[in-house]
Amino acid sequence: MSTFVLVHGSWHDGSAWQAVSDHLEAKGHDCFAPTIAGHGKSVDKNVNHAQCTQSIVDYIVSKDLTDIVLLGHSFGGAIIAKVAEAIPDRIRRLIFLDAFVLNDGESVRDNVPPHLQALLDELVRESNNQMMVIPFEMWREALINDADLELAQSSYARLSPEPYQPWIDKLDLKQFYSLPIPKSYLYCTEDNVLPQSEQWGWHPRMSNRLGLFRLVQMPGSHEVMFSNPVGLAEKIIVAGRD
Amino acid sequence: MSTFVLVHGSWHDGSAWQAVSDHLEAKGHDCFAPTIAGHGKSVDKNVNHAQCTQSIVDYIVSKDLTDIVLLGHSFGGAIIAKVAEAIPDRIRRLIFLDAFVLNDGESVRDNVPPHLQALLDELVRESNNQMMVIPFEMWREALINDADLELAQSSYARLSPEPYQPWIDKLDLKQFYSLPIPKSYLYCTEDNVLPQSEQWGWHPRMSNRLGLFRLVQMPGSHEVMFSNPVGLAEKIIVAGRD
Amino acid sequence: MSTFVLVHGSWHDGSAWQAVSDHLEAKGHDCFAPTIAGHGKSVDKNVNHAQCTQSIVDYIVSKDLTDIVLLGHSFGGAIIAKVAEAIPDRIRRLIFLDAFVLNDGESVRDNVPPHLQALLDELVRESNNQMMVIPFEMWREALINDADLELAQSSYARLSPEPYQPWIDKLDLKQFYSLPIPKSYLYCTEDNVLPQSEQWGWHPRMSNRLGLFRLVQMPGSHEVMFSNPVGLAEKIIVAGRD
Repeated sequence: MSTFVLVHGSWHDGSAWQAVSDHLEAKGHDCFAPTIAGHGKSVDKNVNHAQCTQSIVDYIVSKDLTDIVLLGHSFGGAIIAKVAEAIPDRIRRLIFLDAFVLNDGESVRDNVPPHLQALLDELVRESNNQMMVIPFEMWREALINDADLELAQSSYARLSPEPYQPWIDKLDLKQFYSLPIPKSYLYCTEDNVLPQSEQWGWHPRMSNRLGLFRLVQMPGSHEVMFSNPVGLAEKIIVAGRD
Repeated sequence: MSTFVLVHGSWHDGSAWQAVSDHLEAKGHDCFAPTIAGHGKSVDKNVNHAQCTQSIVDYIVSKDLTDIVLLGHSFGGAIIAKVAEAIPDRIRRLIFLDAFVLNDGESVRDNVPPHLQALLDELVRESNNQMMVIPFEMWREALINDADLELAQSSYARLSPEPYQPWIDKLDLKQFYSLPIPKSYLYCTEDNVLPQSEQWGWHPRMSNRLGLFRLVQMPGSHEVMFSNPVGLAEKIIVAGRD
Repeated sequence: MSTFVLVHGSWHDGSAWQAVSDHLEAKGHDCFAPTIAGHGKSVDKNVNHAQCTQSIVDYIVSKDLTDIVLLGHSFGGAIIAKVAEAIPDRIRRLIFLDAFVLNDGESVRDNVPPHLQALLDELVRESNNQMMVIPFEMWREALINDADLELAQSSYARLSPEPYQPWIDKLDLKQFYSLPIPKSYLYCTEDNVLPQSEQWGWHPRMSNRLGLFRLVQMPGSHEVMFSNPVGLAEKIIVAGRD
């Protein structure tokens, strides 16, 4: 049995994993789903990327979790890479779920295409607060395209504004790229948040940066933790096993 | 419940949708499957693209259909884009099923690779009649690759020659690209009519031209209305819902 | 009913097809799975590509097999292309299963990306014997990524060192590219042995070299003959039928 630590993406918090976590635990695994600093409702959003990372490191260390399978979704990929640098000896394997794998020296924002950069910058300007609120139309059509309208609406109600600073901080990832920790990339084949092209898509662009890695795929959108949590849990087990 | 209008592709006529339509209606939807002018057996093939478009507009207006989900298959994608320009207020959503999404000023022929352009030109020369008759070997191997031989033959018998003029007319699509109508792209992952490459394939090349769109995928060839009509109907419902 | 001849890839021998062959025969087909010269355990590994090809030609001719569906897996794709040149009249259809389709004048090694070329060269140096022994970590993560650890280990135990000369011989394939034999490409969508990119991947890079071909896809890794033999047998039937 494995110990999974699931790190959510932008606009989400740890509660997004509830149904996935329930299924993993029903299968006998331990599962933890911390909320990244500056994420979730009614919290201070004034955080940078290093503070986001530190909050996950602190969570894992405070619970003294070891031999963990550490998964990052989307923006969470840029978190687990830095967490792995901080506490490599606690990690058995990394799983990137439709997640950013940044090149050394890049930011998350650097890795989205120009038209999305412009859109995000506009969202930040609208917020007057260095945050991004995702428009419902974008959520429904591009992020949770495999859900019905009711689920699109109920999941949208669970989101909260995303702080922008962690998106624009440039990350030093030299150490990450020398870590011998095994890695998996779990790709959802209908994920259309990033355009499905070699220049801008999740896979194979992000995944191939990992060097030797285990590829696992499943049908579904960027938001399979909501639209297909049981199917996702099963694939997390496959991606995380030895 | 939705009102679907299904627009066929080249060599086909409206009867190609019979099994799909039966399933959509059994699920409580209304479904219409007009035949484009110049298509079908024993009709005058001397039509241009504007006449093809007008025939679908006339069909929708004469039946006073409103709030429709308008789907175009293959060549039909170039039809529904122009229909949407003519009667945008009658359309709730557009679905492109392995369909051409033309750039402004281009023709359908412009969007196939040089070796297919040469093949089509040769078919036109052979016909002596500004038409294209699709060779059975191409139909069986590249269009309906997921069928058995019997279905490949019976479906081939339902085809008729395709007029060439609608393939070479250059389309003004400036208005189309400013329409706020929601759009879906439904992609069949074994469709090999166009080479599966970023330079020449259906998806993501055609789909990404739509801007924000809903991606839906299913297994199958270019001819799933014959090889898997029930599966296609289910995916049309997913692509067409709010 | 068909007569299948299944040609294995590098590190494998004919016994890799046992479970696939059992299922094909249970469905009423005849199935043959020869071992390529220089392959398998405890044999002389001092062979070149021409000798590999000749061993399969000899097998087919000695059994007087005709009207065969000839399948090549991976490295075996470079074998069946040359077998087809030698005995075209005995072949009903070629199936390339995640297989090399070489351009005229190229070697197998020419068709893997530079980082894999360097890795293979290093394996040859380590062997002191013009052979390559595949490391278990690479086998488990990149070749049989869809198996559990037990199957990864038991299948690894069946492998043997791969001679290098057949990988570096440049092949004259002019005749192959003029043969009118129908061709199918069967692609496993989680195959990550070659990076999944247009520049270096199996499909559509290799497949599109075939000209008109039938595309068939299935989920799974490079090693579906071990991880999903029944599913593979079913897809071989679809790829091989008229």
